[in-house]
Amino acid sequence: MPSFPLLESINAPAELRALERKQLPLLASELREFLIESVSRTGGHLSSNLGTVELTIALHYVFNTPEDRIVWDVGHQTYGHKILTGRREAMSGLRQFEGISGFPRRSESEYDTFGTAHSSTSISAALGMAVAAQRKGEDRHAIAVIGDGAMSAGMAFEALNNAGVMDANLLVVLNDNEMSISPPVGALTNILARLLSGRTYNFARRAGEKVLGVSPSMLELAKRVEEHVKGMVTPGTLFEEFGFNYIGPIDGHDLDVLIPTLQNLHKLKGPQFLHVVTRKGQGYKLAEADPILYHGVGKFDHNAGIQGSSKSAGKLSYTQVFSDWLCDMAAQDERLVAITPAMREGSGLVRFEQEYPQRYFDVGIAEQHALTFAAGLACEGLKPVVAIYSTFLQRAYDQLIHDIALQNLPVMLAIDRGGLVGADGATHHGAFDLSFMLCVPNMLIMAPADENECRQMLYTAYQHNGPSAVRYPRGAGMGVTPVATMQALPLGKGELRRQGQRVALLSFGSMLPAALEAGEQLDATVANMRFVKPLDAELVVALARQHELIVTLEENATISGTGSEVSRVLEEAGLAVQVLRLGLPDHFIDHGDQAQLLATVGLDTQHILHSIRQRLAQIDARN
Amino acid sequence: MPSFPLLESINAPAELRALERKQLPLLASELREFLIESVSRTGGHLSSNLGTVELTIALHYVFNTPEDRIVWDVGHQTYGHKILTGRREAMSGLRQFEGISGFPRRSESEYDTFGTAHSSTSISAALGMAVAAQRKGEDRHAIAVIGDGAMSAGMAFEALNNAGVMDANLLVVLNDNEMSISPPVGALTNILARLLSGRTYNFARRAGEKVLGVSPSMLELAKRVEEHVKGMVTPGTLFEEFGFNYIGPIDGHDLDVLIPTLQNLHKLKGPQFLHVVTRKGQGYKLAEADPILYHGVGKFDHNAGIQGSSKSAGKLSYTQVFSDWLCDMAAQDERLVAITPAMREGSGLVRFEQEYPQRYFDVGIAEQHALTFAAGLACEGLKPVVAIYSTFLQRAYDQLIHDIALQNLPVMLAIDRGGLVGADGATHHGAFDLSFMLCVPNMLIMAPADENECRQMLYTAYQHNGPSAVRYPRGAGMGVTPVATMQALPLGKGELRRQGQRVALLSFGSMLPAALEAGEQLDATVANMRFVKPLDAELVVALARQHELIVTLEENATISGTGSEVSRVLEEAGLAVQVLRLGLPDHFIDHGDQAQLLATVGLDTQHILHSIRQRLAQIDARN
Repeated sequence: MPSFPLLESINAPAELRALERKQLPLLASELREFLIESVSRTGGHLSSNLGTVELTIALHYVFNTPEDRIVWDVGHQTYGHKILTGRREAMSGLRQFEGISGFPRRSESEYDTFGTAHSSTSISAALGMAVAAQRKGEDRHAIAVIGDGAMSAGMAFEALNNAGVMDANLLVVLNDNEMSISPPVGALTNILARLLSGRTYNFARRAGEKVLGVSPSMLELAKRVEEHVKGMVTPGTLFEEFGFNYIGPIDGHDLDVLIPTLQNLHKLKGPQFLHVVTRKGQGYKLAEADPILYHGVGKFDHNAGIQGSSKSAGKLSYTQVFSDWLCDMAAQDERLVAITPAMREGSGLVRFEQEYPQRYFDVGIAEQHALTFAAGLACEGLKPVVAIYSTFLQRAYDQLIHDIALQNLPVMLAIDRGGLVGADGATHHGAFDLSFMLCVPNMLIMAPADENECRQMLYTAYQHNGPSAVRYPRGAGMGVTPVATMQALPLGKGELRRQGQRVALLSFGSMLPAALEAGEQLDATVANMRFVKPLDAELVVALARQHELIVTLEENATISGTGSEVSRVLEEAGLAVQVLRLGLPDHFIDHGDQAQLLATVGLDTQHILHSIRQRLAQIDARN
Repeated sequence: MPSFPLLESINAPAELRALERKQLPLLASELREFLIESVSRTGGHLSSNLGTVELTIALHYVFNTPEDRIVWDVGHQTYGHKILTGRREAMSGLRQFEGISGFPRRSESEYDTFGTAHSSTSISAALGMAVAAQRKGEDRHAIAVIGDGAMSAGMAFEALNNAGVMDANLLVVLNDNEMSISPPVGALTNILARLLSGRTYNFARRAGEKVLGVSPSMLELAKRVEEHVKGMVTPGTLFEEFGFNYIGPIDGHDLDVLIPTLQNLHKLKGPQFLHVVTRKGQGYKLAEADPILYHGVGKFDHNAGIQGSSKSAGKLSYTQVFSDWLCDMAAQDERLVAITPAMREGSGLVRFEQEYPQRYFDVGIAEQHALTFAAGLACEGLKPVVAIYSTFLQRAYDQLIHDIALQNLPVMLAIDRGGLVGADGATHHGAFDLSFMLCVPNMLIMAPADENECRQMLYTAYQHNGPSAVRYPRGAGMGVTPVATMQALPLGKGELRRQGQRVALLSFGSMLPAALEAGEQLDATVANMRFVKPLDAELVVALARQHELIVTLEENATISGTGSEVSRVLEEAGLAVQVLRLGLPDHFIDHGDQAQLLATVGLDTQHILHSIRQRLAQIDARN
């Protein structure tokens, strides 16, 4: 166990600011080592945090946090920030139940000025803070730290477009590591590359004349063009076009460049843009060599690195089921094309990209565009499959309604991470998708109870000539091996899995194992509903007629979810029956182990049994 | 009644293409005159359509439509397109019940390649079509026609960023009229202005050398800089940075420039970008002088123009109620700031901007940014009010969940156009907002039944220390004059408006007049629920115990709406009662008069009575 004498002396940024500048490289070194140690024991994000060690130190050293506001885009790169702001010891509980979050949270620390996790919100939020300071006459800075990947989202552009014409004191720090989670895509990547390669030159002149006392050490400045510049209008870089004073690019690992640059920026008014170049995984050879592998990690041996290729040995993950289905389906149907908004690895598209590069589209962090681009493809007779996380589908809700469902276009959504996701917590749970999709006309929505059903549902959705969605949970299923042969399920038909008495359990998707266990103990009827929309009204009504109590089970908000559809079907049939609606509660759910979280919200077998018995007792008491 | 001999000879673009070029100015003249005549009789969008007369003719003249695909962004500028594609006579039924839509619709014509209405979708959709053509080996063009206002939305940026690195044959035509619906805002506006003023120069070189046979007539080219350009790297314009071949700006009213430019572009491969300058209202002096007034119009006298200042004389619109409240509230509380995503007029912010320019923020067509910017402001103790249409809130759903509700920030949404909006139709109805907001934790949601209640609810929401929404309908209310004094309503409490028997009508928001009428005829109990969330569970339960049938009424999707919350409350109380859930059906609803549409979906008094009596008869038959 190494020791961290300097790091351990820092319990707040004020103590950091009391250090001499020459002590900072040692602090960076200890912080980096501490990060590797800590994350190897808890799991979490590694590459991004190693890349921002010096930037984090420099920002807290130069700016007067928490009075000055730092908004960290995405926020998975804030472990260093957490360690330097009094949460060093809390790192041992990172992303664990009742431990600190893997993202910034306002409730966790005054240094966490804005909760982030979904990408590209930081400029909007920091602009709001900067404008508020201005309106209130408070002299403070607002800083957004945003990665090059996050910059590709439309929301970041909207904020830049707005900020560039405001005179607020906003500093945008572009942390350019040439990578979001997946490799970079899109024109912006090329623009940034041109800035780096010196094809544009303004940065040199600006950086040299206005801000830097020292020359950027990573890049040779394109001085040779400077004579051409004199006396004519300079068109400027992309960011200057938007009204920012653009500075950079500078080496984000060189504190002797970072600190004086930030100190100079500290004095400037109006929208400032600093382009910082960092390397993901910096300082840990294994992560430098494979930053994608070390992006989000489980526990691993510090010296040996991550061993083996699979995180969940044994059972197939739903992501893998989708991945296999997609390649099998593509082999059968050349109309199939697949789209990801920058989630190649997480969504299981690595193999598809290798096998069908011409039919693979990574559109960047651009959920809105992803769906409407798919709609355009569908108009021309292709069969687009959009692989997307439930929580990120929230970004493309209008496109789902206005561009896909309204036109009844055959775009298929493969929705991963439906339900509770575990360690990523409140920002990432797929808690609302069934609620917000149910009210959209023309949608076909399915939720599989096991891996084989997932495969068959994907096939069913693909065959459907209209918008469709298959929504499956994060992680492994029950261990049911998918059957290679694909057969479409009868639309809108659930299946009876167990015949019992008094109580009928209507289970949606992932809840089936718990439903079956509970059904066994209660001798209750259990139905695997399969279809969220259209619901199997016939089955619902039949079960309502035969039982005293209908129980709905879903890993989605209880409000406006599948339970509410069951009620509506019962109402339409004119049936006044006892219903118990079990699902996610009406509050945001923190991070923790998936099974633990399910128990917390009353969706494990034991709590389900308790809820049902309680309700039965009430019914008995009345009769 | 003027005659249009040339226009009347054109029933399809093929006939247009058979004309000689010298005939086109006459056609443009007739088309413009026809548009003014037609819109003055039906109402609709005027300024934008007058601005695109020549562009529409030129596009259909040069491109082989419908084989070549034109996607019109927003689509309210497509009347000329409709007239030239066989719908000249149908224009008399424009935006009317069972008449043609005011926007492109795939079901209406093969020339309407993609349904639009919400802004900024066109580049994504056209890119999808272009990529599909490429993958299928089909030699066709895909063209997106997008306004400068629409270009400010993040979605357009996402699409540009993606398109710039694809080699698909996509032509983006930027229709730059320096105006969205409200005056232009944001840095992009400045960028475009610089392009027009010749501060950048690439367009000159490119346009001169590569494409144009003629010189742009509107603008003097900045030739003087050309010598500086030779021999050095040209950084290019914003759009060139994104990988497009940028041509322009050219005069969008000069067919002698438009047509040869488009003909040359027709031959080029890869992503092309044509910058066209047009004037909204072109050719109709009254509209040229006030394009905002003539943006969307009712019927008016062709020669005299729009008379009077108000569209709905007499009763106050809900928009006006909000407008007045906002200014009154701002006078009381200097923390109040107001934000609009480019809807100053429609959302009732004209007066606020005049009185409180420092507290007014038009962020452009940027709903995502609008909400998160508001969240940032709220973090610093300001009290942001976001004025937004229900249908456009769909664009900011993730920001509502992830940035506002999750952090429980006091951002207030003033949601206009909740429920059926009338002539704008399926794309604009606020049919889903209650459904998609209900499942979001921490939300306070109200829907007023009259104008005074609206004012008091706005005040109540403003006082609430968390996310809140007041959702009101388009147009005028019942004629109840708002009381100047503002008083917060008790949270989560509905009010009993009528005591009756057997049936209890639970009315949400705008349904109250119909509920009261129906209640009168049935001698039923009527409650004005006021709060969508939290629902008045006590009242619901009490009414359920006293009545045989609970009827819920809402101008929102029946699925997952307030009715579903009433059912949930009843279930939680262990009550098995008869419920009749009335609301918007599970299909998209076309355009037409609001009252007519309500009748169509069964939400006028007569249909409500019928539904209730039918259900009562069923209940009687069973007993």
